[in-house]
Amino acid sequence: MRALIALLTDFGHDDPYAGVMRGVLLSRAPRARLVDLCHGVPRHDIRAAALHLRSALPYYPENTLFVCVVDPGVGSRRALLWARGRRHTYLAPDNGLLTLAAEADPFREVRSLTARGLWLKDPSPTFHGRDVFAPTAAALACGLPPARLGPRKSSFIRLPWPKPRRRGGRLAGEVVLIDRFGNAVTNLSGEGLRARALRARGVRAPLVSCYADARRGAPLAVVGSYGFVELSIREGSFAASTGIRVGEAVYAG
Amino acid sequence: MRALIALLTDFGHDDPYAGVMRGVLLSRAPRARLVDLCHGVPRHDIRAAALHLRSALPYYPENTLFVCVVDPGVGSRRALLWARGRRHTYLAPDNGLLTLAAEADPFREVRSLTARGLWLKDPSPTFHGRDVFAPTAAALACGLPPARLGPRKSSFIRLPWPKPRRRGGRLAGEVVLIDRFGNAVTNLSGEGLRARALRARGVRAPLVSCYADARRGAPLAVVGSYGFVELSIREGSFAASTGIRVGEAVYAG
Amino acid sequence: MRALIALLTDFGHDDPYAGVMRGVLLSRAPRARLVDLCHGVPRHDIRAAALHLRSALPYYPENTLFVCVVDPGVGSRRALLWARGRRHTYLAPDNGLLTLAAEADPFREVRSLTARGLWLKDPSPTFHGRDVFAPTAAALACGLPPARLGPRKSSFIRLPWPKPRRRGGRLAGEVVLIDRFGNAVTNLSGEGLRARALRARGVRAPLVSCYADARRGAPLAVVGSYGFVELSIREGSFAASTGIRVGEAVYAG
Repeated sequence: MRALIALLTDFGHDDPYAGVMRGVLLSRAPRARLVDLCHGVPRHDIRAAALHLRSALPYYPENTLFVCVVDPGVGSRRALLWARGRRHTYLAPDNGLLTLAAEADPFREVRSLTARGLWLKDPSPTFHGRDVFAPTAAALACGLPPARLGPRKSSFIRLPWPKPRRRGGRLAGEVVLIDRFGNAVTNLSGEGLRARALRARGVRAPLVSCYADARRGAPLAVVGSYGFVELSIREGSFAASTGIRVGEAVYAG
Repeated sequence: MRALIALLTDFGHDDPYAGVMRGVLLSRAPRARLVDLCHGVPRHDIRAAALHLRSALPYYPENTLFVCVVDPGVGSRRALLWARGRRHTYLAPDNGLLTLAAEADPFREVRSLTARGLWLKDPSPTFHGRDVFAPTAAALACGLPPARLGPRKSSFIRLPWPKPRRRGGRLAGEVVLIDRFGNAVTNLSGEGLRARALRARGVRAPLVSCYADARRGAPLAVVGSYGFVELSIREGSFAASTGIRVGEAVYAG
Repeated sequence: MRALIALLTDFGHDDPYAGVMRGVLLSRAPRARLVDLCHGVPRHDIRAAALHLRSALPYYPENTLFVCVVDPGVGSRRALLWARGRRHTYLAPDNGLLTLAAEADPFREVRSLTARGLWLKDPSPTFHGRDVFAPTAAALACGLPPARLGPRKSSFIRLPWPKPRRRGGRLAGEVVLIDRFGNAVTNLSGEGLRARALRARGVRAPLVSCYADARRGAPLAVVGSYGFVELSIREGSFAASTGIRVGEAVYAG
């Protein structure tokens, strides 16, 4: 079976950065299969990248190699990680990006990338996606034993994750992501949630089972594609209508 | 020959939604070839999706499977369609998205997707692209007989399409799409159009045969890539200069 | 080895134009491998396309065929070029897009595309990416001898490139590109640059070796991924903070 390499970055689509990474991968692993998970992570937003990665894990073929580059600390002494979970393998900077993946796909082995011989020559201090991650991914796709990447690492950085709390008898969560449709994804899990509605920015959004359960233009809350409750407006944009932003409070009940 | 699956959605590139669909397709149809037709359809804009799809049909290899997900009614009781035309096959919600494809590539067979056993388990009410369309496309790419998808359907929803009219002796059409270059695509076919110019928003745009026939910065009308007349400004943006929007009137002559 | 075709355009992702080109390529060269270098070149910006292409050349496999369509003169009598460098081959309009590629990968042979029999029938005057470049690329990928494309051409258009100058004892360059991260890429090469800082828009940006050498929110200059010095703000946007634009002066020292 051809190795599958999935790319997740904040490089966007206006610059050639993702395209240049593809060039390195195809140069060094011509038989690998490349797939774009997403290049539109908000720049430097490690938490959004962690969520995007988490949302994809159950849907990708086993043994996918996820190459994740959202890396505001590029060029500093932050470590570069390789990790092997039960289901997939990962390359990412050690900045918390793998926090949720490690929960969903428990890591069995983590290594620090130190074998500079695998990297492009004279790696630049600004583009480790091209100079370190891509050639490392290509080497793995061609069968390199992971032990050759660098030493084992016993710990790695985990993001503090906002947990829902009880405030004045109500469950309070927060917005963790806003998507293209203006849906405000929260950190409230749908499981066990007994509220009839969510409230945020003074708007009451009844909890329904799908968008079409609300009238066009009406607010609603629904368990969305990330597995969390999200606030929406049917065929509209909750974020544009209310101005809500990542980090803001959301109340259940 | 490997099956070719072309994706057309309004998911954009900022979220992982298209990437997650790719994961499902690669998990279940590892030998299929995926190609992005477009993920930038304006959200919920079924008419734009119908035009985008129509514009691609003659250029794709025979037997391409187009998976089209612009689906404001996701989770409601709207039907999900499979259709086989003379040249290609299609998966889409039954909301009018296939209107123009059915004209260009007459449908020989239409079915309703009802065989839940083919879908992902516990399909969510918000993401049928991932939970229904992708696994169904993968099954077809692996050779599933279409009769297994669900029962035949004798009709499906067609969009009302704005037709050019005569108004006060002049031919009147309307803008159906504005593209990245600020070209305002109309519903006026170039065939048989004898006018010397189009008028819209008080601007006269002479009908020429290519952009370069106008001076830089000057308005022009040309039969564009969709096969319809479009209003442009050479090396500028007709939409930005005039503020014209989808649905506005355009006059020939 | 399967032929590799890399696409570079200003078509963006909102319209189906890139997707339609992919359809033509897959129809006529079903065994070719397609890869997106970038479709986000600012529209009509030939200089940005030249830079994007240049930045990718060393990282792509040998014999990649780069199909480059940033073509404000589409439909005019401008020539269409095929060129073979030492390392790669190229298709592009004759408008200067290949200026930097020709320096980095010296051209051994250049031809004008005139063999209309290779193009789609009745090519439109607005979409040569679909009607001329894609079928020509497919034919080459399938082994067509380049001599069949059209006659040799002894010269082609080169962009005037802004060169750094001495002004009042200081080295003066200019901004040639602004990327998604708000980095202002200049035409100043890092090699031999002895300045301690760059200045632009009244801001002094110390020359450091990586982003992480500056405090969060502080300006810095660094040799970036294009090989040129770029002005940045750590975890911020130099362009958004200062309003700097392409063409503006930058001073070293």
